[in-house]
Amino acid sequence: MKWPEGCRSSGGSCGIKQDGPDVGLLVFDEPVQWAGVFTRNAAAAAPVRWSRDLRGIPARALVVNSGNANACTGAAGERAVLEVVAAAARSLGCEHEQILVASTGPIGRLLPAPLICDALPDLASDADANAEPFATSILTTDTKIKSAETAGPGFSVAGVAKGAAMIAPNMATMLGFLVTDARVDDEVLHRILSGAADRTFNRISVDGCESTNDSVFLFATGRGARAEAADLAQAVTAVCSSLAEQIVSDAEGGTKVLRITVTGARDEDGAARLGRAVADSALWRAAAHGGDANWGRILSALGSCDRTLDVTQVTLRLGGAIVFSKGEPGGSVDPSVMSGREIAVECRVGSGDGRATILAADLSCEYVRLNATGTS
Amino acid sequence: MKWPEGCRSSGGSCGIKQDGPDVGLLVFDEPVQWAGVFTRNAAAAAPVRWSRDLRGIPARALVVNSGNANACTGAAGERAVLEVVAAAARSLGCEHEQILVASTGPIGRLLPAPLICDALPDLASDADANAEPFATSILTTDTKIKSAETAGPGFSVAGVAKGAAMIAPNMATMLGFLVTDARVDDEVLHRILSGAADRTFNRISVDGCESTNDSVFLFATGRGARAEAADLAQAVTAVCSSLAEQIVSDAEGGTKVLRITVTGARDEDGAARLGRAVADSALWRAAAHGGDANWGRILSALGSCDRTLDVTQVTLRLGGAIVFSKGEPGGSVDPSVMSGREIAVECRVGSGDGRATILAADLSCEYVRLNATGTS
Repeated sequence: MKWPEGCRSSGGSCGIKQDGPDVGLLVFDEPVQWAGVFTRNAAAAAPVRWSRDLRGIPARALVVNSGNANACTGAAGERAVLEVVAAAARSLGCEHEQILVASTGPIGRLLPAPLICDALPDLASDADANAEPFATSILTTDTKIKSAETAGPGFSVAGVAKGAAMIAPNMATMLGFLVTDARVDDEVLHRILSGAADRTFNRISVDGCESTNDSVFLFATGRGARAEAADLAQAVTAVCSSLAEQIVSDAEGGTKVLRITVTGARDEDGAARLGRAVADSALWRAAAHGGDANWGRILSALGSCDRTLDVTQVTLRLGGAIVFSKGEPGGSVDPSVMSGREIAVECRVGSGDGRATILAADLSCEYVRLNATGTS
Repeated sequence: MKWPEGCRSSGGSCGIKQDGPDVGLLVFDEPVQWAGVFTRNAAAAAPVRWSRDLRGIPARALVVNSGNANACTGAAGERAVLEVVAAAARSLGCEHEQILVASTGPIGRLLPAPLICDALPDLASDADANAEPFATSILTTDTKIKSAETAGPGFSVAGVAKGAAMIAPNMATMLGFLVTDARVDDEVLHRILSGAADRTFNRISVDGCESTNDSVFLFATGRGARAEAADLAQAVTAVCSSLAEQIVSDAEGGTKVLRITVTGARDEDGAARLGRAVADSALWRAAAHGGDANWGRILSALGSCDRTLDVTQVTLRLGGAIVFSKGEPGGSVDPSVMSGREIAVECRVGSGDGRATILAADLSCEYVRLNATGTS
């Protein structure tokens, strides 16, 4: 995949990880508008705190590393960010405040900033329109790179991401980087990214573990046409949606994608909350892993999330087949539904207009194994 | 263990399970005062809905079954409860409204009420002061019976329980039955049970899956001395606390007990909420299972639960050793701490008076395996 005009990137290995790519640079020919959405975790990592404070200042570049989250690292972690930022600004001949940063990896270890600083001059000179080395440099336990692109009237949008906190949580972060060449107002850019993230990255799930480092950036180089907000929103949402699906498909230890659709809720937020409750149920995710329909666990999760739920108004479908309807159990599930790679769960919970789909991964022994070792 | 005076029980096999005890009867010489706390799940099971509606009516007996939750079973589930209640009332020569019920087992299957009804005459004639057959009849994936007793001035309290919804959730229920011979006012009895459950059963955890069937009952036969509320509260809390610990120790797939203490919170509820967030973290529970200290996941769980948390005021200890203090990482954990059967986690989150301890089990492959099969 190639970035839209005005954007280049590179990636490489600087030695944070024992082996493999672990540092990337996204650089713009000129300072560009950008929008960001960040974790709301009170233990937000040092790079998150640096980047979110720069809202409104056009960005020249973003430095990302994998293999270390630089979270819960205190004053030394803040200094590590400043070192990286200073080195990047020096390499690119720009101001410190024009450099954004993001990190992903284990929490609580000091970021070896000098390794990144030493790599920056080469990363700056290597940068080109090819997104792949950058997309590779951000991976942790992901097994493949995640990228998506689309075009609107006179502009394009391209993005890359790495596995979600909530799905590939060993490394405890989802990162996303989108670039468009559209010309657009700053406020609109923020609104578009925030809306798109809410309906895509915030609807994949879940072990309920919100990262200290989650960050999604949308940069607009302004080299293309002036975009209507609705057109750009549609394109950005499409790219986010594709990246979100790729993240769930490549979930840590995951063997299935659970597509949980809630309809009939009071509103969209209510529907999303109920869907997340099902997606968060370790019980149902374990059952899904084993190919066990066990729809009682779905109903129990819904009833625990909304204590006013009227079960006589609830209809549950698995793979399209009704298993519970208006307070009564009934129907059976074809075994092929539960053994498939993707399981469709439909929960009609009332007669409201609220509707949302949440994507989740199943809960496997492999998830436990991956998270039981090696990060302290 | 023997029940306090005025209470007898029995247990046996009626064929709900393929083998093993699956039905129990708790019977009182005369109608007794009782208090109950029940699941708040909107999909509460038929037996829960029957029993909680009887508040204020003295009880003559309680019929419990394992092997079937009678939850999400619609009108047929309601009828099954009525059948069991009618048969028990017939056996004991009392009113329907004097019979309480509780069930535990898989959700969504119709309760075979005739099996229970047929067993009731023998259960009624077998009942004696020995609590063990009853305590055995309520077990599902529990590996041992859970019982506790204590004495106050002139009265005694005895209780039995089965594995927690949130810990042994394959069968998706925690049940508890306590009996005292104390004389006490009805309102006081309710307040005592509710307060004790809040600080014991509601502080064990957790896969976040709240059952459709959770029920804890406290019966007072009035055969002993009139109890001061404070004395009885202390005794009831002690019995609940012991049963709660036994449940966590025998958690499904669990190999360790995680004792998470939060101090310095704004209030006790806030402390409990933060402790539960740590206990609910699949990431931290998996790490604990593997003996990996990984305290960053604890801090991340706290920061995700309270977005206003000031990490510069946070001190974390594992096995007594500081691993993070006032915004800075530091210190190391002796490997023996993480390999022990019980791991003490202390989170000081500020300078408030709020304090709470949550007990949790680790997350193992065995948990996934047990919940991945065989209940649909």
